[in-house]
Amino acid sequence: MEKCKVCFHPEDRCLEVDKGENLLRAAMQADVHINASCGGEGYCGKCRVIVEKGEVTHKLGVKLTEEEVKQGYVLACCATIESDLEVRVPLETQLGDKSALTRRPPIPLKGYTLTARDWAERLPQWELNPPTAKFHLMMDKPTLEDNLSDAERIKRELSRLADMKDVVMDYPMLQSLPGLIRASSFDVTVTVLDRGRDLRAVRMEKGDTSRRQAAIAVDLGTTTVSAQLVDLQTGEIIAEASDYNGQISLGEDVIARIIYSTRSTGLAKLQSAAVNTIWNLIQQMVEKTDIEFCSITHMCLSGNTTMIHLLLGLDPRYIRVDPYIPVAQHFPWIKASNIGIRIASGVYMRCTPGVASYVGGDIVSGVLASGMFNSEKLTLYIDIGTNGEMALGNKEWMLSCSCSAGPAFEGAGVKHGMRATRGAIEQVRINEVTLEPMIITVDNRRPLGICGSGLIDTLAELFLTGILDERGKVNLDLETPRVREGNNGGEYVLAWADESGTNRDIVITDVDVDNLMRAKAAVYAGISVLLEEVGMEIDAVEEMLIAGAFGRYLEIDKAIIIGLLPDMDIEKIKFVGNGSLLGSYLMVLSKNLIAEADRIADMMTYLELSTSNRFMDQYVSAMFLPHTDIEKFPTVKRRLQEARETARLGSTNPGGGED
Amino acid sequence: MEKCKVCFHPEDRCLEVDKGENLLRAAMQADVHINASCGGEGYCGKCRVIVEKGEVTHKLGVKLTEEEVKQGYVLACCATIESDLEVRVPLETQLGDKSALTRRPPIPLKGYTLTARDWAERLPQWELNPPTAKFHLMMDKPTLEDNLSDAERIKRELSRLADMKDVVMDYPMLQSLPGLIRASSFDVTVTVLDRGRDLRAVRMEKGDTSRRQAAIAVDLGTTTVSAQLVDLQTGEIIAEASDYNGQISLGEDVIARIIYSTRSTGLAKLQSAAVNTIWNLIQQMVEKTDIEFCSITHMCLSGNTTMIHLLLGLDPRYIRVDPYIPVAQHFPWIKASNIGIRIASGVYMRCTPGVASYVGGDIVSGVLASGMFNSEKLTLYIDIGTNGEMALGNKEWMLSCSCSAGPAFEGAGVKHGMRATRGAIEQVRINEVTLEPMIITVDNRRPLGICGSGLIDTLAELFLTGILDERGKVNLDLETPRVREGNNGGEYVLAWADESGTNRDIVITDVDVDNLMRAKAAVYAGISVLLEEVGMEIDAVEEMLIAGAFGRYLEIDKAIIIGLLPDMDIEKIKFVGNGSLLGSYLMVLSKNLIAEADRIADMMTYLELSTSNRFMDQYVSAMFLPHTDIEKFPTVKRRLQEARETARLGSTNPGGGED
Repeated sequence: MEKCKVCFHPEDRCLEVDKGENLLRAAMQADVHINASCGGEGYCGKCRVIVEKGEVTHKLGVKLTEEEVKQGYVLACCATIESDLEVRVPLETQLGDKSALTRRPPIPLKGYTLTARDWAERLPQWELNPPTAKFHLMMDKPTLEDNLSDAERIKRELSRLADMKDVVMDYPMLQSLPGLIRASSFDVTVTVLDRGRDLRAVRMEKGDTSRRQAAIAVDLGTTTVSAQLVDLQTGEIIAEASDYNGQISLGEDVIARIIYSTRSTGLAKLQSAAVNTIWNLIQQMVEKTDIEFCSITHMCLSGNTTMIHLLLGLDPRYIRVDPYIPVAQHFPWIKASNIGIRIASGVYMRCTPGVASYVGGDIVSGVLASGMFNSEKLTLYIDIGTNGEMALGNKEWMLSCSCSAGPAFEGAGVKHGMRATRGAIEQVRINEVTLEPMIITVDNRRPLGICGSGLIDTLAELFLTGILDERGKVNLDLETPRVREGNNGGEYVLAWADESGTNRDIVITDVDVDNLMRAKAAVYAGISVLLEEVGMEIDAVEEMLIAGAFGRYLEIDKAIIIGLLPDMDIEKIKFVGNGSLLGSYLMVLSKNLIAEADRIADMMTYLELSTSNRFMDQYVSAMFLPHTDIEKFPTVKRRLQEARETARLGSTNPGGGED
Repeated sequence: MEKCKVCFHPEDRCLEVDKGENLLRAAMQADVHINASCGGEGYCGKCRVIVEKGEVTHKLGVKLTEEEVKQGYVLACCATIESDLEVRVPLETQLGDKSALTRRPPIPLKGYTLTARDWAERLPQWELNPPTAKFHLMMDKPTLEDNLSDAERIKRELSRLADMKDVVMDYPMLQSLPGLIRASSFDVTVTVLDRGRDLRAVRMEKGDTSRRQAAIAVDLGTTTVSAQLVDLQTGEIIAEASDYNGQISLGEDVIARIIYSTRSTGLAKLQSAAVNTIWNLIQQMVEKTDIEFCSITHMCLSGNTTMIHLLLGLDPRYIRVDPYIPVAQHFPWIKASNIGIRIASGVYMRCTPGVASYVGGDIVSGVLASGMFNSEKLTLYIDIGTNGEMALGNKEWMLSCSCSAGPAFEGAGVKHGMRATRGAIEQVRINEVTLEPMIITVDNRRPLGICGSGLIDTLAELFLTGILDERGKVNLDLETPRVREGNNGGEYVLAWADESGTNRDIVITDVDVDNLMRAKAAVYAGISVLLEEVGMEIDAVEEMLIAGAFGRYLEIDKAIIIGLLPDMDIEKIKFVGNGSLLGSYLMVLSKNLIAEADRIADMMTYLELSTSNRFMDQYVSAMFLPHTDIEKFPTVKRRLQEARETARLGSTNPGGGED
């Protein structure tokens, strides 16, 4: 990727970005404040900057006069960087004293996200060796002398070609076998599923289709379901799709759904809702590509224990009562059609095994993907989804727990929360002096709501700028129209109705903040108890891996500022994104890893927190920003002092002159 | 069993029989002719004999005057032997010259039927070790410290108790698991199916049901379906049932059914007919006993290749066209409910593997039961069902073939043919002089028709008495009302309308005889070609094992007289009865034998006769009684001469005086 050097004036702050990057995003990355309210669609026209040198391509038809264009004005949100640039941010675009900008410490904004190369190092067991394989068989036609049955003929050829013995034929395949094999003159492609215990021939197709083979990886979350369509020849992800879990209307969280499942047809309705969600995602992905349904040969799915129970129609009621016992932890390969996924026949699905009622296959899948089961380093894996689940350990031992964080970071229970899809506010800055926001949305569209990373950013920025106090209440005394009393207590307006894509003010309220604080306190308390259990301090952790559907731009320092993560060396923290989906993806491609997941589920110890007094104590202590004991967060303490100072300087120097 | 010595006068022919034997049967066994037409129900009153010494119990209310009773008269068919007896057969009861009786050579009438002790010797692999086993598990209830899932708890207990590792849980069982296990306070009985490749937990019941376990053995014949309900604790057959295959109305033989299966819903109808037949038999058996449906834990089923295809819904159309290829030879365990057998959930069924399109699992099952796969002796196994199928070999090698015999010996294609059920004529003698018959029916009821053994008896007796000529035509010139011209050519009346249970004359016609001769010729030709193929003569065969649904009283000498079996040392011939059912029964009880059946199916070579000129030549030669070449049947040649001599003496000495 070609790099361009972009310098912002008057601050003279320079950075290197990829050619083709959006100019507003580059400014945010350089920590240069530019007022921006419409998310990047060029609608509010606030982010005007002057390109003094270099080239940008610019979206047409936006709010600039001919005169302005001649002078070099562009809207940062609509400008794509094409070369090295010198950019001047005019005063009216900053709406504040440059001093408020220059004092921000240049810390890394984003965490390190694990890349393909990392997986190769972390998972030496990994190889492209999917549980299903296609074999193109060109067989001699039967004669009176060679009169083996059709099935035995296929078995003989599989034995010759691939040394596969004792392949069992699926009955539906046997039923179509004699007609199909003759229609194609005994030139067929057979798909064989290796279930570990046995080999099953699950599908036969005419001619050579051995190059057309795909699989589905799914993360079945309580709130969000994400899926990938994977090319099994190359290992590439061909399409992705995600949506809210259709079960939400039957119950917000796992407990509500378990209760719903005890109604007469409750379990069946929940199963059907999950199946429909998954099936819609598969359809969406297939429609986007030239892959056919019949090229899909298997599925790997990870989800928490309750989700898997509901999907498979297993009664989950004992998950929610002491001593919290699921029906099963390991789930044999099942035909997708048996639970109503109307994919081509012969597609088997594997659900990742779980550890306990509240540490499910989603965690096992993520731990698998993280490679920690394979690592010497003491690792803390945290998945912040609807629940906060985590595992601590290394290749020798693993301890896991779950804390009821709630779905706030997935956008649920937050007034304008949403998933990280088009139009979601994913990055936020608030100027310490003017208290005006700079927002960036997914795909640079007018904002529709706020996703996980945007919520963490917002909370941290509101706190740093003093708009929120330590208890998470909006300070209504501030002199800005963005702070006001709303129906849910105090609120801060991130985007005005005429700038938003919803024609309503997009706000974050006291109630939202309270929900977010409960979530972050639960996660922090979980981490604390897990470390306490093995008598370790946070410093002993050599690597912290963060998974969760926050969106692409979660900033670690912000997560630490609000006390979601402990104050630790940022270099140790890495992102795995959606770990559950990533594990499913890796398992789709490797039967070794499927076996590995079984081993992980069996070796992991579970720590029950719901009856733990230690957990409750830690939780209450964490219900502050960042924590009742600020000494646990030395970095945050320092940044707060700096921010307060900047604000003080800014406010004593109102409208400070340019240079 | 207590024995009684019974002597018949005036012939002074004595024999030992079991106490409790029927007196008419004892007379037939002693080759003493007693006129009897009503099958043994005391209706015709013809079989009057005088008990001169000893005790019988006698059915009441039959055609005897008080005076006659005082004189010691009884009806032989209604008398049960209670002690040693001296019995006088009055002249009117014989209706013929005693010379006609005394000259009959005293040859063994029945063949030797293999008994339980034989199986023990023949099948050292056999042990009571069924593929399903029940385990009574009394588990600790889960706690926060011991919080394994329900399924893992069961697996742990199975591992502790029975050292069973890696048991897979069937999904339907998982679905009922959590409720049931708690309702019974973790005191349950789990049924585990050993499929060879894996162990599956298929059912769970409350409390200890480990002593209640049964299985179903089935012979799925083209014409007749037979089933047994087997107690898996003792290995005993608790109930038996059989019926015509419900598919008959959709096609008489396998070819007609294969053609029917190619209609739009033909295959589904055939499948459903077979399933209904089996299900009805299961219901009948269960109703007869105190076994419950839910005690049945598995099924073993044997049938010919077409029958198994139809039962499993596999397209059989290529079975009937050159080169005669079935869809499959081996059939994995399948859930009975998957094909519509509405037995309790979790019952798996195993179909015995076949060798080729026309040597199916019924033969493999019979060969298994016969123990020939285990024997040093050169053995010829013949199953005379709707087809004649046979296998020649020993533990080293096996060669098999099939000849289209047709269902005549099962009673189909014969005017008054029937299965060997209540009222079927199963034994027949015809007096050489008077040409009057002596018949015995199953359960001593008025005759309803003729079963296989009765047909062979009838054919042989008609031939020996000259009523039939070598070409199988009824000699209409004979002076007896029993021989007459009917709608289907000549016919012989076995029972008059007023003696029969159908109120119609029971006859055997020229057309019947023709069908029976085609059947016997095909079987004989098959035997000949099989021996020819390996360059052997019939004398090389050390043991001949006969299977088939002839009824209980097939007489080997009669089968040789009509040329169904080659003229060989009768001592070498043994019966296995319904070999296919017997094999199913043995497999129900022993997983070792299930594995053995797989091995037999794989080692057996198949010889295709349908395109063989040698077979056609042999067939044409055998379309005579007993054969065009009488020198191949020296025993029959001698008996014919003796019989003709008896008849000549009888007719020249009409009404010969007593003594």
